[in-house]
Amino acid sequence: MLSEKIEKALEGSSAIRAMFVEGKELAEKIGEENVFDYSLGNPATPAPSSLNDTVKDLLDKEDPLVLHGYMSNSGYEDVRAAIADNLNRRFGTKFAWKNIIMTVGAAGGMNVVFKTILDPGDEVIAFAPFFGEYRSYVSNFDGVLVPVAPDYDTFQPDLEAFRGAVNEKTKAVIINTPNNPTGVVYSDDTMKKIAGILLEKEKEYGKDIYIISDEPYRELVYDGVKENFLTKYYHNTLVGYSFSKSLSLPGERIGYLAVPDEVTEAEHMLSGLEVANRILGFVNAPSLMQKTVAKCVEEKTNLEFYDKNRKVLYEGLTNLGFTCIKPEGAFYLWLKSPVEDEQEFVRTAKKYNLILVKGSAFGCGGYVRLAYCIAHEKVIRSLEAFGKLAAEYGLNGQGE
Amino acid sequence: MLSEKIEKALEGSSAIRAMFVEGKELAEKIGEENVFDYSLGNPATPAPSSLNDTVKDLLDKEDPLVLHGYMSNSGYEDVRAAIADNLNRRFGTKFAWKNIIMTVGAAGGMNVVFKTILDPGDEVIAFAPFFGEYRSYVSNFDGVLVPVAPDYDTFQPDLEAFRGAVNEKTKAVIINTPNNPTGVVYSDDTMKKIAGILLEKEKEYGKDIYIISDEPYRELVYDGVKENFLTKYYHNTLVGYSFSKSLSLPGERIGYLAVPDEVTEAEHMLSGLEVANRILGFVNAPSLMQKTVAKCVEEKTNLEFYDKNRKVLYEGLTNLGFTCIKPEGAFYLWLKSPVEDEQEFVRTAKKYNLILVKGSAFGCGGYVRLAYCIAHEKVIRSLEAFGKLAAEYGLNGQGE
Repeated sequence: MLSEKIEKALEGSSAIRAMFVEGKELAEKIGEENVFDYSLGNPATPAPSSLNDTVKDLLDKEDPLVLHGYMSNSGYEDVRAAIADNLNRRFGTKFAWKNIIMTVGAAGGMNVVFKTILDPGDEVIAFAPFFGEYRSYVSNFDGVLVPVAPDYDTFQPDLEAFRGAVNEKTKAVIINTPNNPTGVVYSDDTMKKIAGILLEKEKEYGKDIYIISDEPYRELVYDGVKENFLTKYYHNTLVGYSFSKSLSLPGERIGYLAVPDEVTEAEHMLSGLEVANRILGFVNAPSLMQKTVAKCVEEKTNLEFYDKNRKVLYEGLTNLGFTCIKPEGAFYLWLKSPVEDEQEFVRTAKKYNLILVKGSAFGCGGYVRLAYCIAHEKVIRSLEAFGKLAAEYGLNGQGE
Repeated sequence: MLSEKIEKALEGSSAIRAMFVEGKELAEKIGEENVFDYSLGNPATPAPSSLNDTVKDLLDKEDPLVLHGYMSNSGYEDVRAAIADNLNRRFGTKFAWKNIIMTVGAAGGMNVVFKTILDPGDEVIAFAPFFGEYRSYVSNFDGVLVPVAPDYDTFQPDLEAFRGAVNEKTKAVIINTPNNPTGVVYSDDTMKKIAGILLEKEKEYGKDIYIISDEPYRELVYDGVKENFLTKYYHNTLVGYSFSKSLSLPGERIGYLAVPDEVTEAEHMLSGLEVANRILGFVNAPSLMQKTVAKCVEEKTNLEFYDKNRKVLYEGLTNLGFTCIKPEGAFYLWLKSPVEDEQEFVRTAKKYNLILVKGSAFGCGGYVRLAYCIAHEKVIRSLEAFGKLAAEYGLNGQGE
């Protein structure tokens, strides 16, 4: 009855959303305070307090026909200028307002990009582990997602495997750093090498290959790691951004695409993206939120909130004998399953009211993801449950 | 460089947006007050004054983690319940909250529907003239749009032509009443006959065929015409709605889909739509606006504002000797070009600073569309320009 693709998507569904639902069901049974739900990347620290004041101020001062009205499909020019200025100041870029397209979140932005560049059969490389929705975004436009394995020590991409994966069908490479689900930040060296390989391959195949940089976690970095902006490494870099995490606005669906002048025929690309934004049915990013983020673009989220969780969780789990990749960004921790089948581990964890997401949902079995964007006291209390879980698997933790 | 489909879309572009840009350019040259821009369906009467107060109240009282946060991909349950209640009260439907899915406007909703039901090669019938974007929405999912000609006297659909167009590949029929671009409201008789033909064809081909009712103009009816809701005519009816016109919020991208229980396997359909909403990158309708429209769902737009324009324009143009279809809904007037090539007529009109949109953009040459959602004094002043235009074409208007 439904389209083949949707029937298939329904079968696969989202493992993250499924665990979120399991957590909710458990919470109804035993009380929410007793469930340690590490499933969903939903910020638990509110939007900056100034944001609501900004919205009220806009409602008082702006003409409602402008504030709630149609504008260019790519967004208000003043909003795009404010974002360009902010990026230029922070990263030394040279964006004008026209290089920015406002989008319905980063998910909307990525679909707009794939609609604009993919012909059926085109390949898009993603470094495993990766956000599972990338598969759908690429499939929406009949592209083929090609996973490339990580270096399992560092969870930086395996660059030799990457070089081998690029071929004449490769149209784009998705890069997501700070990374969901690992929390790893790609090093300067990694980025330079990726750029080097792509330049070489562009020449070899005589075609454009794009980096699509999915940057919702750009500002969520710890331990003195610097915020990075990827357009400096490679000419054909398209940046997708969302204010979901940096301003704790995931429900508002507000983000942007940045297209540097260095992109091949950048103006033509921008026209294509604008049309795709319209005909996919986004039409434009929500107007009131466009004006709001333009005024709040210098605001910062409560990084300390996540950092506290990160430290306690990483130390606690390591002490219990778990093997974790040390996260330097985002709000995810990537934990090696003590048994090969991480789905069994996920089920066992649930016995202790711990809701985790299986790594195979991110194209990388044998691991699980913890989204530690939850209340700090819960993280602390969860360590006792993790202790019991470690004991069940006979880990030699000092915490036992 | 870009995908074939986007290159093609760039060539076609939007005739409406193109005329809007021409109008803007003319306004810069001769002053905005001297341009009679009938190109864009952008409400010129502001959102109800209570709407901004509602937003402020929500900002004051709701937890920001809820108000700006993730919810189910189909929207907040309380918002969906408020919309279901409103429809049930007005139209005697029996929707529960789960029958409603909040969407990023009606354009987002229609793309979600087509993503959910279309396999490549499936046909979707649209009654000419129709909103040109339907072509892109259907093409996005490799469907084929099949236009069916109107009855040129009434601009109701030609039902015999419709019967002939339905075949085993037909998956859906788009209905848009009150109609963009004609302003015509489909009669009860038309709807009953369409439903009869579809029931017959469903049986003949042993498959589901859907009506997709695109209803952004549902509340914009005049001359005592009653608001209609199409689910009562036919079981497989999916309703797409937008608050763009009824609450003058076109920039906010907020609407919904309604799926009655009578739809075949309605629950499965709802699951499919929810997944499509997520993987197309909408994720969910903007959260603050969801909560806002739920509280403003009983508000009405300033219908009198449009009705005044409608009367003056219809009478004025008819008196000048133009042939117009009398609009009973929406805020469009459909005018017969005095020459066969309406694009020539559009160009001539521009000499008198009149910005019209060619009918061929709506799949129906020989006519032009006027969007009369502009200031009343402009409509009045424009009649002098129309008078000159009528004279140029030698029309025997009493106004001359």
